[in-house]
Amino acid sequence: MVEEHEDQIENKKIILKGYLTTGLLLKETSMELKIDKFDFSVVSKGSGGVVVKNLYLSCDPYMRGRMRDFQGSYIPPFVPGSVIEGFGVSKVVNSDSPNFKIGDLVTGITGWEEYSLIKKPEQLRKIETDDIPLSYYVGLLGMPGFTAYAGFYEVCSPKKGEFVFVSAASGAVGQLVGQLAKLHGCYVVGSAGTSEKIDLLKNKLGFDEAFNYKEEPNLDEALKRYFPQGIDIYFDNVGGMMLDAALVNMRVHGRIAVCGMVSLQSLSYTDGIQNLYMLILKRITMTGFLQSDFLHLHPQFLEFIISNYKQGKIVYIEDMNEGLENAPAAFVGLFTGKNVGKQVICVARD
Amino acid sequence: MVEEHEDQIENKKIILKGYLTTGLLLKETSMELKIDKFDFSVVSKGSGGVVVKNLYLSCDPYMRGRMRDFQGSYIPPFVPGSVIEGFGVSKVVNSDSPNFKIGDLVTGITGWEEYSLIKKPEQLRKIETDDIPLSYYVGLLGMPGFTAYAGFYEVCSPKKGEFVFVSAASGAVGQLVGQLAKLHGCYVVGSAGTSEKIDLLKNKLGFDEAFNYKEEPNLDEALKRYFPQGIDIYFDNVGGMMLDAALVNMRVHGRIAVCGMVSLQSLSYTDGIQNLYMLILKRITMTGFLQSDFLHLHPQFLEFIISNYKQGKIVYIEDMNEGLENAPAAFVGLFTGKNVGKQVICVARD
Repeated sequence: MVEEHEDQIENKKIILKGYLTTGLLLKETSMELKIDKFDFSVVSKGSGGVVVKNLYLSCDPYMRGRMRDFQGSYIPPFVPGSVIEGFGVSKVVNSDSPNFKIGDLVTGITGWEEYSLIKKPEQLRKIETDDIPLSYYVGLLGMPGFTAYAGFYEVCSPKKGEFVFVSAASGAVGQLVGQLAKLHGCYVVGSAGTSEKIDLLKNKLGFDEAFNYKEEPNLDEALKRYFPQGIDIYFDNVGGMMLDAALVNMRVHGRIAVCGMVSLQSLSYTDGIQNLYMLILKRITMTGFLQSDFLHLHPQFLEFIISNYKQGKIVYIEDMNEGLENAPAAFVGLFTGKNVGKQVICVARD
Repeated sequence: MVEEHEDQIENKKIILKGYLTTGLLLKETSMELKIDKFDFSVVSKGSGGVVVKNLYLSCDPYMRGRMRDFQGSYIPPFVPGSVIEGFGVSKVVNSDSPNFKIGDLVTGITGWEEYSLIKKPEQLRKIETDDIPLSYYVGLLGMPGFTAYAGFYEVCSPKKGEFVFVSAASGAVGQLVGQLAKLHGCYVVGSAGTSEKIDLLKNKLGFDEAFNYKEEPNLDEALKRYFPQGIDIYFDNVGGMMLDAALVNMRVHGRIAVCGMVSLQSLSYTDGIQNLYMLILKRITMTGFLQSDFLHLHPQFLEFIISNYKQGKIVYIEDMNEGLENAPAAFVGLFTGKNVGKQVICVARD
């Protein structure tokens, strides 16, 4: 069902200018807005591809890893001069795939541009329209939400009544981890970097306590204040100094889920972790994980989160920036803590 | 069945002079030989205690932790001016316990002295004499052997054909880990610090390969040479630079058993661990453990090891120093890699 479009249209896109090198910090100028022509008929008969109009694009910290020329990761680097890729919510506007028709709403990996050709639409997931905001499909119901779900239930082995600490707690992943932990009957404290975020954690996201790590001269003392009895589970989104402080405050048989190391990615902390000997003293398990290893749980994740969201037991905070041209600034802001909640770019409403 | 001994006899003992402080390295002079009087009748009727003559004493790295004034560990610090305690093999020479009679051979925590009063003999285990050297009850069949057994089978989740790296591989724990891994069908490489140890690893202990880390200018390159396909299991006895190098050479879903951090205890490495981000990239699990959490497996450990030892499938290398007066030097030697194999002090043969 490929339609014919004679006219080429303009297609704004964000490209990566060149690889980041060691010591070269990510800046808005690492990326560039370009305008190309896009031909809807790029989906030729037999190609099996689809053309999508991108509605919402996701800014996720892992993407910075793709801006380096490092082949050893779980995902290949971006190609300099080419469009940046990431998770998005899109609308099918042309299709040669039997599984997608024009008008379908989909989520999956797309380009940071107005229109994208998806050559392998099998990686797209169709969105059944319901009462849930579309943009949540790159947040609460997307990769970050699933990261929180798999990380908390599968990696942290939580038990009711346990003491849970979440760093970057108002972020795309952390805010859901905290809520899942509360639903599970845990005591939950989060850290974040502004008073606005602390207020959200305590008054909107249901954390028992929250603190602004930037106002704590000594993170070890801060954790001792909030966890006089110690930490059973540390859901680590930042690495660095906070990880070192958490290590000395863990309880026996504590678990650390290593989800992200934003502090390391921004190169602001290169001292290394000093307190790993605590792993032995307290018999701690520390596990790095990726949500992609748990995809068999994805259906139950969607069911659980959608059900709890509709019952009002889970909320989700987004930081929505309007316009593709603002995507580079929004992305850079992730690493300075500028975003409040899950960072999303709205390219078009429909 | 307390016997009367009118005479007090001399009792040589090694005492801790004072706590080690940060930056104060362990030296022989941190300890001191003293001669006390010992009265066999110290075991009074109704006390339930036993008096033992100590035959073999064990030098174990964890003991250094007890020489610091740090209360937060899994075992309390020694008392300055008092005798050093550790695992030993001893002979009961007086008893008020219904479970032990004179002449029984026992193993458990005793003092670094010729004769000890054991107030709580329930912590002692009786040794059934067989063809196994008595001193092995503080090594192969003692805490280090059980550490290797529990650490390898329970913490590393080994699978046949996996690639296993062991540091401090000729030590009390490492040498058994390597042999267990070989029995399990793994490929095993060990690191150690002298050519004599490398020779033992390759020609006596059955490691597939071994290398002298002191002769490697770049540990990362050394590991890439021995594990071109990467490491599935790293049994870490040292921490520090070797851990950092192993982290970047782990395979996806690799496991690191954190058993000891001798490098940290000797304060020779304070740079901190840089490469923990590999935990995420490779989805690695890193687990600190203590053998004491696995005591339910102790009977099957003894049965398995004794059986394999008697069949000649497991060997064990000891470094035996004669005389209690040489205990401080032997203990200090653990932290400079002087010992070849499990370090034991022979106080008396029987």
